[in-house]
Amino acid sequence: MAVIGASEKPGKVGRVVLENILRSGFPGKVYPVNPSHDAVFDLTCYPSVSALPEAPDLAVIIVPAPAVREVLEECGSSGVKAAVIISAGFKESGREGYRRETELRDTARRHGIRVLGPNCLGLADTATPLNATFATRAPQPGKVAFMSQSGALCTAVLGWSQENHLGFSRFISLGNKMDLDESDFLESLEKDGNTAVIAAYLEGVNDGDKFLQVAERVSRSKPVIVFKAGVTEAGARAVSSHTGTLAGSENAYTAAFRRCGALRAETVEDLFLLARGFSLQPPPRGPRVAVITNAGGPGIIASDALERSGLVLASLAEDTARSLREGLPEAASVYNPVDVLGDAGAERYRLALRHVLPDPGNDALLVILTPQAMTEIRETAVALAEEAGKAGKTVFAVFMGGDEVAEAEEILRGSGIPNFRFPEEAVRTLRGMKAYTDFLSRPRLTRVRFAVDAGKVRQTFDSVRAQGRKELVEVEAREVFQAYGFPVARTILATNLEECIRAAREIAYPVVVKIASPLILHKTDIGGVVVGIGNTDDLIAAYENVTANARKFVPAASIWGVLVQEMLPPSRELILGMSRDSQFGPLIMAGLGGVYVEVLKDVAFRLAPLSEEEAREMLRELKSYWLLQGARGEKPADIDAVIECMLRVSQLVTDFPEIIELDINPLRVMEDGKGCLAADARIVLEE
Amino acid sequence: MAVIGASEKPGKVGRVVLENILRSGFPGKVYPVNPSHDAVFDLTCYPSVSALPEAPDLAVIIVPAPAVREVLEECGSSGVKAAVIISAGFKESGREGYRRETELRDTARRHGIRVLGPNCLGLADTATPLNATFATRAPQPGKVAFMSQSGALCTAVLGWSQENHLGFSRFISLGNKMDLDESDFLESLEKDGNTAVIAAYLEGVNDGDKFLQVAERVSRSKPVIVFKAGVTEAGARAVSSHTGTLAGSENAYTAAFRRCGALRAETVEDLFLLARGFSLQPPPRGPRVAVITNAGGPGIIASDALERSGLVLASLAEDTARSLREGLPEAASVYNPVDVLGDAGAERYRLALRHVLPDPGNDALLVILTPQAMTEIRETAVALAEEAGKAGKTVFAVFMGGDEVAEAEEILRGSGIPNFRFPEEAVRTLRGMKAYTDFLSRPRLTRVRFAVDAGKVRQTFDSVRAQGRKELVEVEAREVFQAYGFPVARTILATNLEECIRAAREIAYPVVVKIASPLILHKTDIGGVVVGIGNTDDLIAAYENVTANARKFVPAASIWGVLVQEMLPPSRELILGMSRDSQFGPLIMAGLGGVYVEVLKDVAFRLAPLSEEEAREMLRELKSYWLLQGARGEKPADIDAVIECMLRVSQLVTDFPEIIELDINPLRVMEDGKGCLAADARIVLEE
Repeated sequence: MAVIGASEKPGKVGRVVLENILRSGFPGKVYPVNPSHDAVFDLTCYPSVSALPEAPDLAVIIVPAPAVREVLEECGSSGVKAAVIISAGFKESGREGYRRETELRDTARRHGIRVLGPNCLGLADTATPLNATFATRAPQPGKVAFMSQSGALCTAVLGWSQENHLGFSRFISLGNKMDLDESDFLESLEKDGNTAVIAAYLEGVNDGDKFLQVAERVSRSKPVIVFKAGVTEAGARAVSSHTGTLAGSENAYTAAFRRCGALRAETVEDLFLLARGFSLQPPPRGPRVAVITNAGGPGIIASDALERSGLVLASLAEDTARSLREGLPEAASVYNPVDVLGDAGAERYRLALRHVLPDPGNDALLVILTPQAMTEIRETAVALAEEAGKAGKTVFAVFMGGDEVAEAEEILRGSGIPNFRFPEEAVRTLRGMKAYTDFLSRPRLTRVRFAVDAGKVRQTFDSVRAQGRKELVEVEAREVFQAYGFPVARTILATNLEECIRAAREIAYPVVVKIASPLILHKTDIGGVVVGIGNTDDLIAAYENVTANARKFVPAASIWGVLVQEMLPPSRELILGMSRDSQFGPLIMAGLGGVYVEVLKDVAFRLAPLSEEEAREMLRELKSYWLLQGARGEKPADIDAVIECMLRVSQLVTDFPEIIELDINPLRVMEDGKGCLAADARIVLEE
Repeated sequence: MAVIGASEKPGKVGRVVLENILRSGFPGKVYPVNPSHDAVFDLTCYPSVSALPEAPDLAVIIVPAPAVREVLEECGSSGVKAAVIISAGFKESGREGYRRETELRDTARRHGIRVLGPNCLGLADTATPLNATFATRAPQPGKVAFMSQSGALCTAVLGWSQENHLGFSRFISLGNKMDLDESDFLESLEKDGNTAVIAAYLEGVNDGDKFLQVAERVSRSKPVIVFKAGVTEAGARAVSSHTGTLAGSENAYTAAFRRCGALRAETVEDLFLLARGFSLQPPPRGPRVAVITNAGGPGIIASDALERSGLVLASLAEDTARSLREGLPEAASVYNPVDVLGDAGAERYRLALRHVLPDPGNDALLVILTPQAMTEIRETAVALAEEAGKAGKTVFAVFMGGDEVAEAEEILRGSGIPNFRFPEEAVRTLRGMKAYTDFLSRPRLTRVRFAVDAGKVRQTFDSVRAQGRKELVEVEAREVFQAYGFPVARTILATNLEECIRAAREIAYPVVVKIASPLILHKTDIGGVVVGIGNTDDLIAAYENVTANARKFVPAASIWGVLVQEMLPPSRELILGMSRDSQFGPLIMAGLGGVYVEVLKDVAFRLAPLSEEEAREMLRELKSYWLLQGARGEKPADIDAVIECMLRVSQLVTDFPEIIELDINPLRVMEDGKGCLAADARIVLEE
């Protein structure tokens, strides 16, 4: 490898990087490159890459930003295929830097050089070993691969991880992600035998589709944990739909992580606690957790935390309780949490472990120890280390008391048992690991395709665009939905009163009359809708009324006539929608209409294309789901029909990427078996 | 002081306690008491308390449980007025222990001895100084008083606090709280000049009323932070009311802590982080937080955490931004978070501090540092220590990187600036401290009393009880509510059809008819209610119908007749209720009726007696509050009338402690100015 910009000068990044590489024990050849030196640290220093005796596999570049492009150009000519550009002064530093990075990218592409950075801390690999970073300390070896979009966080984490004995297989500072991004590294880590778990700090992903594909595949072989920063919405683009208002990139990321199985950490600390958990212990097979403790208080704290986290305090088998009763003092609690009492020595813990671990009624075990007068801290750690492995279950230790338990912690660590300072941390970690079990046991998603008339939709969109519009009027939206097999309310466009009367007879009273005009989108607001019309007299009055209102309130609107529509039976109202996320594409939303969506924001999101399972999950996720199941003597709603509608929406927005917003509001849902109807719908196309 | 059960034998608690006392530098005389020794550690050992040369002020008792009572008896006879009973084997250890504790309490009371414990770790006081615990390490001096219902947690915390440099003024293991409890210690800590903040681990409180009174008073002079364990509901007593089902002791504790201003920590770690924050820095005057950082990533993490916590990322004044722009490099961000860039030395931090700290637009400051190549960690800590004090604002440091920043941490600590490992921890602590500011600025609550007819209620209750019932029938409940000035729907009890017809005429059609029987409480379920009766024919049919249904479905019920009631205009429906908590007494609940309470559990709780402010706060807390304010063109509801009803409920349940459950469901609320009506109500009396 070449280190371009290598230096001996104290304080220079080029010195720190070279020192780190040399100290790390990198087994290959290292060529310092710097025209101002003949030798650096006893190594021959070359004036340029082209002067090297052989083409290096990797170039680490630490020269001032304006010089980087030329250096990379030379690397390319010399046959270098990979570079780590540590230099800053690119996209992150304003317009000039942005231009510089664009040129640099072109250079890299032209030569086919894959680049990490620029503006990064570098990368380390504890297996090779290689530490090509300018961090002041090196990552310890371990099974966690960490990548970070913040170089500063990398250095901060190195300090924390040393104190907390977290080791890394790879340590990657992503920098500006000019070329290689999170998905590329995920891909390379998939087959890396030294990596058991991947942790990432991301502020965003470069390419949503690529990330989804790669992360889902990688997640099936090892856990991928992400801390996503930047949750605060930066001034989102103007949106006009309900769905658009509620969607936001945060919901898109949540849906994306769920789709691909990436586990989300709530805090930076949780990211590493979870990574450590996975690197040491198998994920729990189920939610049932047993607790062994020598103190009531921490046992209660653990129970509370379990309850709140959605895990379950396991019920021990009667046999287990009986054996514990025989072996433990009378005052001990033999139900979960098992309290071995404050005077418990190591052997009492061992006895409890031997009975509780094999009990098939629990999936994971927390062993809590507080240092008391009779406590054998070290010996208890040994007993736990000896017993824990036999069960094949997730075993966590909560030996409390800071440096009093330091030696025990080391013993536990040696046997792959992580220790936590507080019960709550152990429980949060268990819950995160359980989510991975859930992902792995998730059935492969089945996606259906319906026979539809895509040509008709294309035609409609073309005609809308030909008229210089980007928003469809109701009758056009209706055509689109019909072409995609949606049940829609029976509707006839009447351009005059005579047609209107004929239409009403054809549809049969009672009917609804709505104004039809491309400029009037919120029809109700201007008195453009009359419902429940039962006879011709009322129909005539309604016709006059809605057209007069339209002329009065929107004088500029060209009026196409009125829509005569069948009056629907009483039904529950849902909203279905789609908002296109700039990163992950179509984000589907479902919720119950009215107050549920407007005030309670009781909605669920998933990315399209949707599977049937996901659609069903979305509805179940709603707090108001029970309203669909039938409450207060109502019959259940036709949930299967709703799911079919969701899948048809998914297919429509997948087939036509030009749809950027879509609302069906309301979707009227009849009783079970009687289907549902899109009563009103909006579609907005890309400009 | 006397140490009864003092010993030299290794492993004996009596040895550890005596050693701790002697090592702590206790300035008074220490008398070991133990009949089996003549001397312990070169101190004369006395066979009994009565043999001592003087009566000790304090006795620490570490003898086996069966001997404790006799020892205490002797203490009493010798004039001892205070004892710490460390010995275990009492209430916590089963029936025999329970009996022993009861006897012990009698002995203590008889002699007027105040007792801490039994079954505790002891107590320490770093000001005296005195360490009368059997913990293996001593608490460091500091301003935090800690009391704990779990002795094991005490020992665990001592280890953690040493690592995290948290010092204590008092350290109290409450044990079984046979005599002295959390409220007694709160009271004693109120005036303790060495204590700036009180932290407590509690599984429950001994006496709800006493705790509320004391904690509210103490909270006004220093913050009281509580970690409440045992959130999981232990098999609650059977409840029959809506309110009772939703209440639970967890909601009672939440309401109690809110009432008395005790701050609640979510985790044990947060308890101590918050205590440390209060012990070092003033609470923020408001929610606006400025952030100075040398790295983008941690700045984003802090911003996200602020947003999520309900605090606000402060807007810096234009002047501040301009000054920063002049002083900082071009690439720096001069808006909040202020990014001084990765190569910032101490002076750049100082410049930013000098401009940001005096800006009146922020109430608190987070200073984030990640160790990078040019970072002057130590010097930056010095700069921060020098600048921070000048502003009188809350200043927190987030110097990340473990032991790399250890020296800086020490410098900061010396200047009273706590350092946090991660931005999220700093933000959680700030939020907790902000809650204290909110409590201090809360207006004194005003409580009104209405003129009511308590005698009438007493009469009704007596008559119900005379009939061997504990649940009032509707007509009785109505009398009670009327006596307390509640607007109720006009209602006449008709014992036969003729009376029924007369009543309907008197009230005027349309009317409602309901079956009246003491055994039929859920009238609708058995077809015992007919609404919207418009004429005499329908009335007769309704009368026959409801009485026939009652006879058919509840043949055992004695039927008093039917209630004829005015038909109310359309209105919004609320539920008001009270459930009596075993610890804190009457817990008032309010929520919107129907799905809001049943499914969404959108309800608010406060303890009675309610102030007007609290009642209003309860309604505002509801997610569905907007429905009362008027939505979708509806007029606002008569919120003032609802609040009056809540206050009348509060007065009723305070005046009559025998009411253990009460539901007004629904309370029908008319448009603003038109009042509200209790349409149906239940009252259950204590057995």
